[in-house]
Amino acid sequence: MNAPAAAWLRTLHLPRPSLSDNTADVDRLSACLQKELGTPAVAIDLGLQRELPGLLRQHGFKVRCSLFRDRGRWVVTGIDPDDHPAPALGLAVDLGTTRVALRIVDLADGRALAESACDNPQIALGPDVLARIHYAERPDGLNQLTTLIRDGLNSAAAAACRAAGAAPSAIRTVAVAGNTAMTHLFLGLDPRWLIREPYIPAVNRPGVLRAADLGLTVGPYARVLVFPNIGSYFGGDLIAGILFAGLHRREETAVLVDVGTNAEVVLGNRDWLIGCAGAAGPALEGGVSRMGMLAAPGVVDRVRIDPAALRFELHTIEEKPPRGICGSGVIDLAAELFRTGMIDRRGKIVPARCGPHLALVDGIPHIRVVPADWSATGRELTIGQPDLDSLVRSKAAMYTILETLALTVGVELKEVTT
Amino acid sequence: MNAPAAAWLRTLHLPRPSLSDNTADVDRLSACLQKELGTPAVAIDLGLQRELPGLLRQHGFKVRCSLFRDRGRWVVTGIDPDDHPAPALGLAVDLGTTRVALRIVDLADGRALAESACDNPQIALGPDVLARIHYAERPDGLNQLTTLIRDGLNSAAAAACRAAGAAPSAIRTVAVAGNTAMTHLFLGLDPRWLIREPYIPAVNRPGVLRAADLGLTVGPYARVLVFPNIGSYFGGDLIAGILFAGLHRREETAVLVDVGTNAEVVLGNRDWLIGCAGAAGPALEGGVSRMGMLAAPGVVDRVRIDPAALRFELHTIEEKPPRGICGSGVIDLAAELFRTGMIDRRGKIVPARCGPHLALVDGIPHIRVVPADWSATGRELTIGQPDLDSLVRSKAAMYTILETLALTVGVELKEVTT
Repeated sequence: MNAPAAAWLRTLHLPRPSLSDNTADVDRLSACLQKELGTPAVAIDLGLQRELPGLLRQHGFKVRCSLFRDRGRWVVTGIDPDDHPAPALGLAVDLGTTRVALRIVDLADGRALAESACDNPQIALGPDVLARIHYAERPDGLNQLTTLIRDGLNSAAAAACRAAGAAPSAIRTVAVAGNTAMTHLFLGLDPRWLIREPYIPAVNRPGVLRAADLGLTVGPYARVLVFPNIGSYFGGDLIAGILFAGLHRREETAVLVDVGTNAEVVLGNRDWLIGCAGAAGPALEGGVSRMGMLAAPGVVDRVRIDPAALRFELHTIEEKPPRGICGSGVIDLAAELFRTGMIDRRGKIVPARCGPHLALVDGIPHIRVVPADWSATGRELTIGQPDLDSLVRSKAAMYTILETLALTVGVELKEVTT
Repeated sequence: MNAPAAAWLRTLHLPRPSLSDNTADVDRLSACLQKELGTPAVAIDLGLQRELPGLLRQHGFKVRCSLFRDRGRWVVTGIDPDDHPAPALGLAVDLGTTRVALRIVDLADGRALAESACDNPQIALGPDVLARIHYAERPDGLNQLTTLIRDGLNSAAAAACRAAGAAPSAIRTVAVAGNTAMTHLFLGLDPRWLIREPYIPAVNRPGVLRAADLGLTVGPYARVLVFPNIGSYFGGDLIAGILFAGLHRREETAVLVDVGTNAEVVLGNRDWLIGCAGAAGPALEGGVSRMGMLAAPGVVDRVRIDPAALRFELHTIEEKPPRGICGSGVIDLAAELFRTGMIDRRGKIVPARCGPHLALVDGIPHIRVVPADWSATGRELTIGQPDLDSLVRSKAAMYTILETLALTVGVELKEVTT
């Protein structure tokens, strides 16, 4: 979404028609865009063709077009009067199995205007990918799942637009990245063959679709880019991650790790990329005991422990009183606990070293991170032995994946940057 | 519609997916088509993507695709099992102001399978182009006009399909040629600016649209080619006529005349074409007195008059008893009446020369063409002085148009072929 504004918006002052220049309205606009963009291929939806004659005459033939480039073709995704137009918006969607996060950007400059997030409402029909794929096999099951996420996205987009002071109809471009199963359920594609040998998706590259065909209540001519997947277990979310991290452009070999319910690891550089996915368990964020949560104000994101005094120095997002810990906070915490000897190399709590930080909850050892009177919730925040065990297993899973990849391609892990 | 079958249909036997060839279904089909067609640009609607996994597995990955080439892109307009597929159909529509004619063709070989025709149901809201354009300016007027022609086309297409023993869903490609106003009303485009200086259509080249967007109940992924117009008074029907006659490919200069309510004349060859339109009056067919009608069984299409006996030798379509006369019959008739001296060079009836063929109807001179006891209707068929006057005026209009064109480009009319 950070391409120059010229790629997404064009302001046109069309020559007014006359008896000696009687080209039709649509063709007049199209010819002007073709010249501006240096392409013969401009597509304008029938609905926009219907609106154009009134729009042009009402606004003196001066308009701003929002555009989407679909391979060789430029699609006009909306037309606004040029006199004080409202911002034309892009909507980015991170379509997770558990959480859905949205961001609204201004297509003029790529600036983020608002964000919103919600639980994936499909959770009501199945907690995880496998349960939902099975649910989709019931009569009307797929339709129910697709309707839930569509309505959820429409609500979340409307909320983000309200926060940005804009109307959902101003959204002209939508980008959706999710794992292969979530993408199938969003598109109404049967996910049945994803989980049956030989594990074939309905589609790898859904490409650019009309928002209206997907039931999204955004601009009526908006287009939706759905990120492509590589296979049933290597989704568009990881492709989006590779593009964002620039892994495909780096000279040095680097590694990208995406940990959710599954751990996905990509190793490579601008010449080659290899990926592998595996179960990680709910090691981070919402999965870590009672204190894990998504990054938000008041969530611990950095941890240091004074080795002498065993004093916890916590940083929270926006420096609000602590109410939980996010993924990077958990990794910091585990590293510091190990560095100070409060856990051993197997991740087991060393009671003798913990002093007053040791707590027993239902007979299970925990380490107190935030005492009750400092916490935003009024309850102490702790991390327990089971949480640490999960974390160790997840880390082991990711390391195994990474080692497998490195062995496969003959790269020494010490050569790899992150 | 006479392109080789390869352009419209492709039968594909896809390699079955396996663990070592796990490309998704849509991408598998797309890759195969790209290879067959030698293009990187294949488009498959979301609805078809949804149907594909079931379709491929049910039919052993052997399917027949119907295709439509839209400039550089190939659009898949339908997918059928390869085992005994029903014909995939094309629908050609001549969208007239008064009459609408349809033809169903088999996309495999271009063969015509059935035809149907109906009055343009918009007549109920306005008899002619101008009345309908004014009607479109009323609240909901445009929507009513568009709905009428859409429903009329759907009924006529269903009737033609019944006659062809096929289902409307087998129609994958629709071609529509009409004058600029009728095309606008069909597409739901505001025709208001067609009749106001400087006479600007909403669109010259509507291009290729989805049948579903136009409310046509044909194949759900069918595409509609709407013939382009050159201006408000030079429509897609004339473009279709030029293409059909091959005027744009001929070395010698030729003339094409299309006479309906308006006369449209195109003069030119493969290097240049110039056109002009003007009012012709209802000179031919249904417009000529009580005996004029569209070509059909029992309609007079050729006339000879024995100059000595003044005996009328009539040929009727399918040699059924005569019940009317069509356009080419009227032209034959006028030529023979002039050749035998029954009318003079101004088109006036010469009573002295007509003998028993002269009749007075309400005091106006007529010529008896078919006596009552020979006619299929039981009434005599006559042509009156007012009909002949209309014909002369129409011919004069067309000749004036042609002469104007010839003068404009400096061509002698005797150089022109037809």
